[in-house]
Amino acid sequence: MSNPESRTVAEELQRRLEQQLAFVLEVDRLKQIQRRTEIIGGARAENSAEHSWHLAVMALVLAEHANHDDLDVRKVLGMVLVHDLVEIDVGDTFLYDGAERAEVQAREQRAADRIFSLLPTAQGRALRGLWDEFEQGGSAEACFARALDRFQPLILNYANKGALWQRYAITRQQIEDGNIHIREGSDRLWEHAKAVLSQAVASGLLADDPSA
Amino acid sequence: MSNPESRTVAEELQRRLEQQLAFVLEVDRLKQIQRRTEIIGGARAENSAEHSWHLAVMALVLAEHANHDDLDVRKVLGMVLVHDLVEIDVGDTFLYDGAERAEVQAREQRAADRIFSLLPTAQGRALRGLWDEFEQGGSAEACFARALDRFQPLILNYANKGALWQRYAITRQQIEDGNIHIREGSDRLWEHAKAVLSQAVASGLLADDPSA
Repeated sequence: MSNPESRTVAEELQRRLEQQLAFVLEVDRLKQIQRRTEIIGGARAENSAEHSWHLAVMALVLAEHANHDDLDVRKVLGMVLVHDLVEIDVGDTFLYDGAERAEVQAREQRAADRIFSLLPTAQGRALRGLWDEFEQGGSAEACFARALDRFQPLILNYANKGALWQRYAITRQQIEDGNIHIREGSDRLWEHAKAVLSQAVASGLLADDPSA
Repeated sequence: MSNPESRTVAEELQRRLEQQLAFVLEVDRLKQIQRRTEIIGGARAENSAEHSWHLAVMALVLAEHANHDDLDVRKVLGMVLVHDLVEIDVGDTFLYDGAERAEVQAREQRAADRIFSLLPTAQGRALRGLWDEFEQGGSAEACFARALDRFQPLILNYANKGALWQRYAITRQQIEDGNIHIREGSDRLWEHAKAVLSQAVASGLLADDPSA
């Protein structure tokens, strides 16, 4: 019970728990990262923690619409739960900003290095792997997770009568060009997105692109 | 391709998607449900959507500390993601309120009936099943999910120097009595919780119960 070996196991578990709780407390800061998208009703900006929760709920209920049949939903959940953690250091970057992507990506890599290394090594590497996979977008799970990440603001913005599109003078063509990731993850969500945008244009909530 | 049967399948999928999106938009309201616990730094109350996200991240990184070895983490994630949805209708109830639990539970059941029935029938039943299982707390997954739900405010309150405990004149004894669920899910988290409370008492952040 109290031989040296079991003490070592108990100490190791305690050390792991302390590292994990340092991570758990650190990621609380994601609740303070404001996105451009507003919660429904438009009373305030959505933050990245509640956005991540919303994507996870969507992964639970919308997985059947993924282009890939044999989706690992557990993996999609892991991805959407951690996909925005780097914003703790970098902040949220708006899809339609002209910001230099290469510079932002370098800063995000440094943030991922810092945040995931708070965890025990192998666990940190595993979560970092999910984050990398989401960023690269190659796998079935990453394609679907990225589709949700683009689809969610679109339906929130439409529920808010396009206020954000009008504020930033965003056109249907810009949204379609910027959200092609939706199609890679789910043709069905993409068809729905295009129908929503058509309704928005028809209702005068969204400008068509005259040059398109 | 366009025979009546495939049209029916496509129509059914479209109908399911519409029900699922009604649910996705409805649950956005959880972002407006304020809890008593405050985010770290104490700038504002935490809302139930970001709280649910935080629990899900904790489930990802702390599962090894569950009392049960063969935990289905996917199920724990599902539980913590939906466990607070009924608050959309009922609001958050504070652990230390003297509110009539039976009345609150009846209202929560009605809320669960309404919210989960927005989904396609079988899917709504499955998620409602996760919510029921969490509420009843019998399974390994429910025990661990409930442990996280109690452990998270405790470590946030401690990180905020016990401001909430002081504001509501809560004692260590009350916290230990009210958070026994932690032990049912994880002896290790319970040991950590007790150590945190002892430190809080030693630092003068939390009153011991003189009658205990």
